[in-house]
Amino acid sequence: MDSDRDQQHEGVFVFNLPQDHGVNFSTRRGFITKLKSGLKETFFPDDPFRQFKNEKRTSRKVAKGIQYFVPIFEWLPNYSAGLFWSDLIAGLTITSLAIPQGISYAKLANLPPVIGLYSSFVPPLVYAIFGSSRHVAVGTIAAASLLVGQTIQTVADPIQEPTLFLHLVFTTTFVTGLFQASLGLFRLGILVDFFSHSTITGFMGGTAVILILQQLKGIFGMKHFSTKTDVVSVIKGIIHNRHEIRWETTVLGVIFVAFLQFTVLVREKKPKLFWVSAIAPMTTVVVAGVFTYLVKGQNHGIQIVGHLQKGINPLSIRYFNFDAKYLPAVLRAGIITGILSLAEGIAIGRSFSVTENTPHDGNKEMIAFGFMNLCGSFTSCYLTSGPFSKTAVNYNAGCKTAMANVVQGVLMLLTLLFLAPLFGYTPLVALSSIIISAMFGLIKYGVFIHLFKVDKFDFLICMAAFLGVIFLTMDEGLMISIALSIVRALLYVARPATCKLGKLDDSSASYRDVDQYTAATTFPGVLIIQLGSPIYFANAIYVKERIMRYVRSEQGSGEVVEQMILDFSGVTSIDMTGIEGLIEIYRVLEKNGIRMLLVNPRLEVMEKLVASDFVDKVGKDSFYLNLDDAVNAAQYSLHLLKTNGNNSNQDTTTHQHGNGDHA
Amino acid sequence: MDSDRDQQHEGVFVFNLPQDHGVNFSTRRGFITKLKSGLKETFFPDDPFRQFKNEKRTSRKVAKGIQYFVPIFEWLPNYSAGLFWSDLIAGLTITSLAIPQGISYAKLANLPPVIGLYSSFVPPLVYAIFGSSRHVAVGTIAAASLLVGQTIQTVADPIQEPTLFLHLVFTTTFVTGLFQASLGLFRLGILVDFFSHSTITGFMGGTAVILILQQLKGIFGMKHFSTKTDVVSVIKGIIHNRHEIRWETTVLGVIFVAFLQFTVLVREKKPKLFWVSAIAPMTTVVVAGVFTYLVKGQNHGIQIVGHLQKGINPLSIRYFNFDAKYLPAVLRAGIITGILSLAEGIAIGRSFSVTENTPHDGNKEMIAFGFMNLCGSFTSCYLTSGPFSKTAVNYNAGCKTAMANVVQGVLMLLTLLFLAPLFGYTPLVALSSIIISAMFGLIKYGVFIHLFKVDKFDFLICMAAFLGVIFLTMDEGLMISIALSIVRALLYVARPATCKLGKLDDSSASYRDVDQYTAATTFPGVLIIQLGSPIYFANAIYVKERIMRYVRSEQGSGEVVEQMILDFSGVTSIDMTGIEGLIEIYRVLEKNGIRMLLVNPRLEVMEKLVASDFVDKVGKDSFYLNLDDAVNAAQYSLHLLKTNGNNSNQDTTTHQHGNGDHA
Repeated sequence: MDSDRDQQHEGVFVFNLPQDHGVNFSTRRGFITKLKSGLKETFFPDDPFRQFKNEKRTSRKVAKGIQYFVPIFEWLPNYSAGLFWSDLIAGLTITSLAIPQGISYAKLANLPPVIGLYSSFVPPLVYAIFGSSRHVAVGTIAAASLLVGQTIQTVADPIQEPTLFLHLVFTTTFVTGLFQASLGLFRLGILVDFFSHSTITGFMGGTAVILILQQLKGIFGMKHFSTKTDVVSVIKGIIHNRHEIRWETTVLGVIFVAFLQFTVLVREKKPKLFWVSAIAPMTTVVVAGVFTYLVKGQNHGIQIVGHLQKGINPLSIRYFNFDAKYLPAVLRAGIITGILSLAEGIAIGRSFSVTENTPHDGNKEMIAFGFMNLCGSFTSCYLTSGPFSKTAVNYNAGCKTAMANVVQGVLMLLTLLFLAPLFGYTPLVALSSIIISAMFGLIKYGVFIHLFKVDKFDFLICMAAFLGVIFLTMDEGLMISIALSIVRALLYVARPATCKLGKLDDSSASYRDVDQYTAATTFPGVLIIQLGSPIYFANAIYVKERIMRYVRSEQGSGEVVEQMILDFSGVTSIDMTGIEGLIEIYRVLEKNGIRMLLVNPRLEVMEKLVASDFVDKVGKDSFYLNLDDAVNAAQYSLHLLKTNGNNSNQDTTTHQHGNGDHA
Repeated sequence: MDSDRDQQHEGVFVFNLPQDHGVNFSTRRGFITKLKSGLKETFFPDDPFRQFKNEKRTSRKVAKGIQYFVPIFEWLPNYSAGLFWSDLIAGLTITSLAIPQGISYAKLANLPPVIGLYSSFVPPLVYAIFGSSRHVAVGTIAAASLLVGQTIQTVADPIQEPTLFLHLVFTTTFVTGLFQASLGLFRLGILVDFFSHSTITGFMGGTAVILILQQLKGIFGMKHFSTKTDVVSVIKGIIHNRHEIRWETTVLGVIFVAFLQFTVLVREKKPKLFWVSAIAPMTTVVVAGVFTYLVKGQNHGIQIVGHLQKGINPLSIRYFNFDAKYLPAVLRAGIITGILSLAEGIAIGRSFSVTENTPHDGNKEMIAFGFMNLCGSFTSCYLTSGPFSKTAVNYNAGCKTAMANVVQGVLMLLTLLFLAPLFGYTPLVALSSIIISAMFGLIKYGVFIHLFKVDKFDFLICMAAFLGVIFLTMDEGLMISIALSIVRALLYVARPATCKLGKLDDSSASYRDVDQYTAATTFPGVLIIQLGSPIYFANAIYVKERIMRYVRSEQGSGEVVEQMILDFSGVTSIDMTGIEGLIEIYRVLEKNGIRMLLVNPRLEVMEKLVASDFVDKVGKDSFYLNLDDAVNAAQYSLHLLKTNGNNSNQDTTTHQHGNGDHA
């Protein structure tokens, strides 16, 4: 039967171009070539070894290799006093933020406050060696702190068993570090890609809301508080324990928050005064501490941080606890916060590197974050990353290199050695105010509205994270949002957009979507469809139904379709089920007396169409290199049919002659 | 800063086309329009209500509506004696297959054999009313029977508690029916789409292997056998109980299998003799039964089916058991076998409807299968579908409509009323031979090899199902394979294929992939990249990296890139993260002194680029309708730059004049 078709068409097209119409059927890459190219695109899209793989001399190659893997060797040799001056100022600024934030966030994770200070000493030094970004400032992050605390307290009570809890947190940090470093080494940055902007924005916003609610404990000076984080439980808890609310702390809290928000306002109005808001938390801590000391605040229900041990980080490596009883919670906390903190740290680092055109490498960042958390887990630190707020302060303070992190580390070392006990007098209400004030900035109403305007599905993904975190739990909110993102990606594959094309009267006689360019002219009897990509198992049936709907819709408006031109230019991928689907389409069209013409399948698609014998089945003469050739051929065979019949369509022939000039 | 750019470009392009270069920025659909179109593409791609929504008269509308929802009203009014004659023959043939298969498969599910006969009485009648396919023959399927048995026996032992087991299977069938009908009513056929050909082929093959292994029990006449299905457990079990092997049944089994395979061979050589293989199982049952009766087989270790109750299906609706203890297993079995049997029944129905150009509607089939299993669960049946083998026999026997299923139902009714006890003498070895013989055909080596040749990833998906079923369990094999399919779809979205374009010297001066068409010419200083679709959260970073790699690779070969043309023709979708990514690309290119030109964004993409202010950011003058315009503009501005400098590039100007003819 196939040979019948060939003969029939040969008769019609014999005057035409050679049978392949200039289409390249022969280029076929070997399996190894395709595999290499596939792996490269999947794991090495940035061609990371370009810097040294072309070096001739081995010593140069090794040097460049070390520079590549340990970025400090890239910038340190050219380091100058001028740069150091900038980095010193930035380092001072971020340290003044690191001390109060370190103490506050450690409390969020139910950890002793000094752990928060430890975490701003070792990790910044490690990051300075391995980090590829110039602007990231290392520190603890609020959302991940809360998440670690929430997850680990399901297996160990931080009040009843504080030592066990602490050791499990160190183990979690170890897991996080190992996980992050492995992602980087195995170049699996692709996992982080699945945290979309919308997910992160929604999650951050939701976390900010529940963090603000949590801080009401400190503001109200309450002793009992909900152990759950969702808004309903927290409000119920506050109402239930309303007799514990102290007016003294509440007044202080309102004043502190007002002050901090005022400094934020100053920064927004006069960006040059960014340092006002940067040192405001430290100012709050000092003022509040002195005030509490003077008025003997403890007698008025103003709780303070309490004793802070002098001295540097003790080793914690021997405390790791891999007991099977706790391991699931530890792994869960480690991996979720690991991805989350990577997503935050990499996103902020990238955005400044784009602004400043400085280097940034997602996979190197993962390795750096991994090493920093591994070293941290050995030295009594918990999870650190590159927080949005601290990194922004670092950038605004004029940091030039990762040296700012070294400055932060050294200053924190000095604090730990000499000043730590003083910070023990910090009232909790001051810390709560600092967190609340930091959190206001993370609820991005503007972005929510922008998302709503531009893309409703993105808005849905964002709201799922936001509301999920507020009304359920943090990880449920995150999971729902990511699941929706994946559903969206799968839906995209399941329903690739197709459109009907018509010819424009522009300089190149291009073919464009007739819905978008209503001036585009169509050809009677010929239907031109641009297929979306990919043609896959998940959409093979859809593509068939959609094409048949185009045919019916033409018939509905009185047109008879006899030639169907499928534009494959945009189809970048096809699989076996997709090819079987195309065969089905071909058969169904044939049964309905419609001839199928294929235009410009791309290299990868053509390889598979040839290998699966699809090309032999439909015949090489059904393939065309460009739409014009296909339309001319379609019109010519329509013309022949019409002439053999009894009515010749004037319109068709006119068009055909018009196009004939091109050939 | 943006206004500076505009002015600068205005100076350059003022002589040119109007600033929008003919690109349509204005068409923007409302939210409701977009939502409706999105929902329609997702759930109603086949526009199912087209038949009656345009009818003017209400009575016609209702009539057409009923015909749509209950397909029997579509074909019965035109039914004729000629059609009935064909359907009668087909119905007789499939009944002769249904009796032995019904008994065998019921035993696979650890059910009393008579349940298998019941299941070929009620469900075919229900399908005849609601089914949209002309060719599907209803019956039990081996893989799902085994899977139901395996899953339910984890909570109820079929030997210790046969009644409980039976009731749970009825409940499972009810769940399956409800689930399938809901999928159809809510138009969620999209779920079934995620069973690719490769998954089904691998799963069927793997199931066939473990079913053959299971049947060795019957062939060897063994009393004890592994309760697990994986190949290692089964072979260990056989070796352990090797003393139970009876030579008498083994000899009989080998003879039966040889006979059945011979009839299959006959069918393959002479397709007209298909009926030989169709009635062979029935012949085997009768011959084996008579033989065993004559030689008093029970004395030689030949086990028989045992007592079969006369009479039609008893009601089973009051036996449903929704006890929380069993519910998880029931739901699991119901849903997995529900999807699985839909995938099988819909795939086979569709393939014959394509061959014969008869109607077939996936969503209607789901509803029909759902109703058939619901009614079945009320009347002592278990899971039924449209099995591959039986449907193929039905088609070959010349069935014309679903009346063949009515014939099957009526014949089965007669069998139940009068002949059932006779089939109680069937030796188990005959049933095992029938199953083994049926299974050989489901291991499709040819397809495996074809997949390996055409698409390695599809082969991997297929092998995951095949080996997973053989070495693990049936549902694990299935899950792994589907998970791999989803990973593949996500990887596609994460790594959309891009390519570098050059201009061909063909009739339309098309731009094509330079790797595919090496004759395509490129333009110095201008890099043309065709982007793959979609630009999404999962690939925004990749797309940036990939574009920068193109730039570096040009620079590596000594070219200076100053103009980057991005062809958006194939980009059918974009999301917020994707747009942010484009902004990043724009900024990075700008920092590197490269101008970005965008060609032909499609309707959906353009809507979002406008709504997100991207168009305002990069300027409308960066958008072009076709590649030629963009290339001309790029070359012109290069030319201006060069002339203002001190070396004019002859090559560039030539090209530009050449293209000028088109304008």
